[in-house]
Amino acid sequence: MSFRAALSAFRPTPESIPPPNVNLTLPVPAGLPVHIHPLNPLEFLLRGAQIYPDKLAIAHPDVPYPSFYTYAVWAQRVQNFAYGLIQAGIRPGDRVAVIAPNSPMIADAMQGAIGARAILTTVNTRLTKAEVDYILEHSGSKLIFVDHEYADLVKGAKVPVIVCSDTGRAGDAYEEFLSAGRRSSRERGWQGLEMDADENAPSCLNYTSGTTGRPKGVLTTLRGTYLAAIANAFEAQMNKESTYLWILPMFHAAGWTYPWSVTFSFSTQITLRTVDNTLIWKHMLHSAVTHYCGAPTVQIGIVNHPHAKQLTRPVRAIIAGAAPTAHLLSELEKLNILPVHVYGLTETYGPFTRNYPQDAWQSLSAAERARLSARQGHAFATSAPLRVVHPLADLPPGTAPGTLLDVPKDGKTVGEIVARGNITMLGYFKDQAATDHAFEGGYFHSGDLAVWSADGSVAIQDRSKDIIISGGENASSLAIEQELSSHPDVLEVSVVAREHPKWGERPMAFVLLHAASAKKWAGKHAEFAADLKRHARGRLPGFATPEWVAVVKELPKTSTGKILKTSLRKRAALAKL
Amino acid sequence: MSFRAALSAFRPTPESIPPPNVNLTLPVPAGLPVHIHPLNPLEFLLRGAQIYPDKLAIAHPDVPYPSFYTYAVWAQRVQNFAYGLIQAGIRPGDRVAVIAPNSPMIADAMQGAIGARAILTTVNTRLTKAEVDYILEHSGSKLIFVDHEYADLVKGAKVPVIVCSDTGRAGDAYEEFLSAGRRSSRERGWQGLEMDADENAPSCLNYTSGTTGRPKGVLTTLRGTYLAAIANAFEAQMNKESTYLWILPMFHAAGWTYPWSVTFSFSTQITLRTVDNTLIWKHMLHSAVTHYCGAPTVQIGIVNHPHAKQLTRPVRAIIAGAAPTAHLLSELEKLNILPVHVYGLTETYGPFTRNYPQDAWQSLSAAERARLSARQGHAFATSAPLRVVHPLADLPPGTAPGTLLDVPKDGKTVGEIVARGNITMLGYFKDQAATDHAFEGGYFHSGDLAVWSADGSVAIQDRSKDIIISGGENASSLAIEQELSSHPDVLEVSVVAREHPKWGERPMAFVLLHAASAKKWAGKHAEFAADLKRHARGRLPGFATPEWVAVVKELPKTSTGKILKTSLRKRAALAKL
Repeated sequence: MSFRAALSAFRPTPESIPPPNVNLTLPVPAGLPVHIHPLNPLEFLLRGAQIYPDKLAIAHPDVPYPSFYTYAVWAQRVQNFAYGLIQAGIRPGDRVAVIAPNSPMIADAMQGAIGARAILTTVNTRLTKAEVDYILEHSGSKLIFVDHEYADLVKGAKVPVIVCSDTGRAGDAYEEFLSAGRRSSRERGWQGLEMDADENAPSCLNYTSGTTGRPKGVLTTLRGTYLAAIANAFEAQMNKESTYLWILPMFHAAGWTYPWSVTFSFSTQITLRTVDNTLIWKHMLHSAVTHYCGAPTVQIGIVNHPHAKQLTRPVRAIIAGAAPTAHLLSELEKLNILPVHVYGLTETYGPFTRNYPQDAWQSLSAAERARLSARQGHAFATSAPLRVVHPLADLPPGTAPGTLLDVPKDGKTVGEIVARGNITMLGYFKDQAATDHAFEGGYFHSGDLAVWSADGSVAIQDRSKDIIISGGENASSLAIEQELSSHPDVLEVSVVAREHPKWGERPMAFVLLHAASAKKWAGKHAEFAADLKRHARGRLPGFATPEWVAVVKELPKTSTGKILKTSLRKRAALAKL
Repeated sequence: MSFRAALSAFRPTPESIPPPNVNLTLPVPAGLPVHIHPLNPLEFLLRGAQIYPDKLAIAHPDVPYPSFYTYAVWAQRVQNFAYGLIQAGIRPGDRVAVIAPNSPMIADAMQGAIGARAILTTVNTRLTKAEVDYILEHSGSKLIFVDHEYADLVKGAKVPVIVCSDTGRAGDAYEEFLSAGRRSSRERGWQGLEMDADENAPSCLNYTSGTTGRPKGVLTTLRGTYLAAIANAFEAQMNKESTYLWILPMFHAAGWTYPWSVTFSFSTQITLRTVDNTLIWKHMLHSAVTHYCGAPTVQIGIVNHPHAKQLTRPVRAIIAGAAPTAHLLSELEKLNILPVHVYGLTETYGPFTRNYPQDAWQSLSAAERARLSARQGHAFATSAPLRVVHPLADLPPGTAPGTLLDVPKDGKTVGEIVARGNITMLGYFKDQAATDHAFEGGYFHSGDLAVWSADGSVAIQDRSKDIIISGGENASSLAIEQELSSHPDVLEVSVVAREHPKWGERPMAFVLLHAASAKKWAGKHAEFAADLKRHARGRLPGFATPEWVAVVKELPKTSTGKILKTSLRKRAALAKL
């Protein structure tokens, strides 16, 4: 059934239907001059409901009870959500948690929390119960929305919990919450809500999924969300004809602000509960998908799926989390998937830089083009420019503390990427010490080590802790991975440091083989290792050639799909080789 | 010669060439928190110079001395401009005037004034000397840039004048100014300039070309310009592949903020000194133009030009100033020119609303579709929502002064369009009384009378002074013009009120005929009048049918292409009929 047919067949709850002649504006806060109104990303949805009320806003097709909402209906549900929060006693600035895969509930929460001026804490569904407990406790969330599949994660919670069965039908506790919100509003509508007069008020509280230590709570602002969302919509060239496929979890850095890029551009969004490549290809081929976001590891799964075939319309893949390899870029392009390589962190609202392809690259070799495309590029239009500075620990003696010295733009000197301005977080929640540390010298310190080219483009070499000091030389694990991934049998590879009696450290590669290659090399891993090292020697300096190669069945990953190098380092240390 | 060839052949002055490894960032003002940087539209140009240094930024081809600048070179010239201002003693907040047609100088000034934190006063080249004197005096401009063709307009000026010969070559006084600016900078570059810490600081001073009374000086802000420019780039779907043709004068409401939409989107701009339809068609057909702005009267000239032919690539025409007629819309579409109908005033940075076409319109008749397309629509994404309110003069007795009461969204009740927020001016320069009056009730009063539809779309009926009170009924001159323009012989038409002994007022139509039609009706204007009235009677109520019809050879227009209804009213009053 087409989405159009499904939309007309689906009956939202009666409380989801807006009253006639609804006023789709938020009241202007009193006391502001005529020439200013506070930047507020919820306004994008209200415009969508006003201008394209009958356009499909959310399609949630691949579940036992599919649901489909137009912009007008969705806006009403978001309003109900806001009133539901207020009725539950949520006050401006209070935290509200949501634990859910991509689904209408979390999409509602992204918008609705702003309506009630609450701070939304999205919790990663892949965390352990202890981690979830910590985040709920640390955030001081007063109300929890949880998807039925993850209800166990909040068992014993000390605050009210609303379990959503993801049905969109009456009888679902989440629908009851929305309907009660509508009733409590007594049809005051948007006019009964308040817009924050301070555009720098906190908007979301996004916990990092750091590979080490406690997660930190990143506070974003309304202004930052507004400007980051516009930048993302512009960089991805989204418009009313776009269909955005939610592969990236919305709980990951508030979905990189795409929940508001989608409403800014009046796009349709399709919510996928899991990264299921069969479903992804179904929608790529049959649901007019034009955009999706994902880390390279997600993209690898997509290009290698048996249903993969060249798309008749171009699809833009926004890639972040690590640099795409040359091999991946060319595989994507073969399928008519146009890569938009971006970079960022939870602290920068997700992406805040982009690799801007140049016309002149067309005349270069595929390898050279891929090398240039893998750079993290330049800051977005609505960000302040980034800098690459000498790591604070490495400053010459006598330098004033917190001094930021740019590294030369020589494409060689390694420094740390620092950022500031409208697409940099407000700070870490309840952690002034960590905030002060991260903001030393008036810039946010990313922890990512990069070189800066004469053209202003940055290229990440590694997280500071991922650099391999081999024979006194700094070897970038990322650069090694880039080269190893060009070996035809390699599907995915991760490289970490391992202690070496002579050289201090030497690189160790963990390799996942293509299915066919795994058969070919079965029982012959030593031969494969030799072959891979031969491949590497022609491409890398000696100190960067992997000393050890382990063929593995899977690579350990964080809940957001990043390879867990800490875990690989432990395995490397214990491995008998 | 192609632009690419022309660009490589052209030699900018030595001082236009940036030094190697230039730092293309403005210093961050001290004292701001890490999560905020002031919105500043000059940053877009600096990004262009950083990311696409060799891309053609400005082509100025149709002059005795053509010039062509890449983004890198243009940015250096803009920097030189800023230093030139500082060297000339211009301090932050000082006014600087520019009197020029579309040309590199005025494009430089739009950006360069921000670099020196000066307020740019653009002066309409079509004004009389007395009007120019008034603006120069009222603005208190301390320095004047004037294009050689308009040097007479500033004869006897009491402040320094720089005459630009529009050559881009050494020996041109303007080039000397830029070169001296570069020398005075002593290569401190962008780092020697200051970014305004206050994003609400004034940016431009744009004088209205009101049809009555003294021009008023509209102050815009950096924040407003930044957000309006992004909205315009988004609504027009501009990107790196776009080429913007300057038909709209840049001196008109600061070119509707397109000078910064172009840099935001890394587009190429072509500067045309005059509205020359032969040149326009040359560039439409051969210079890869993708976008231009213009009032309907300009569009009429374009579609009726002998060189007009269907374009192989779509061109977006951003239309404002009056609603396009059904006939015009269909003529544009035949040529593959896609109309984007926007509306605004100098006080709203030019456009701040847009007609958002709906998929459902496809199934309507051409006439009905045109009627819907002629509505002014909804406010831009970065504007606050607009309202239509009962005119303050018409409020029920006892209502508190300044109360704004929305008219019902019935598509019938006429009210005034009011606006506020980030795309509304800071105020009128040195005219607190006019500012207070315009901002009564906390909204800017546009003076445009409109109806509000249930879908939130506004449709202008008239400027308040253009309404015709015929037999006690309010007849919209605009609605009458829309209907008369559907007569096959009518090229352009304007309708005004004329006194009538019985009905108070009755409509009088001034008609410009198509060239072929003028021959057909030569010597038979009375017959044509009868024919037009017959045409009108089926389409308009009796009180709105024109009582008188005058066939004219041209319609009087303001310097910005608006039809001068004041002048037509005078002619109507004097006409013997």
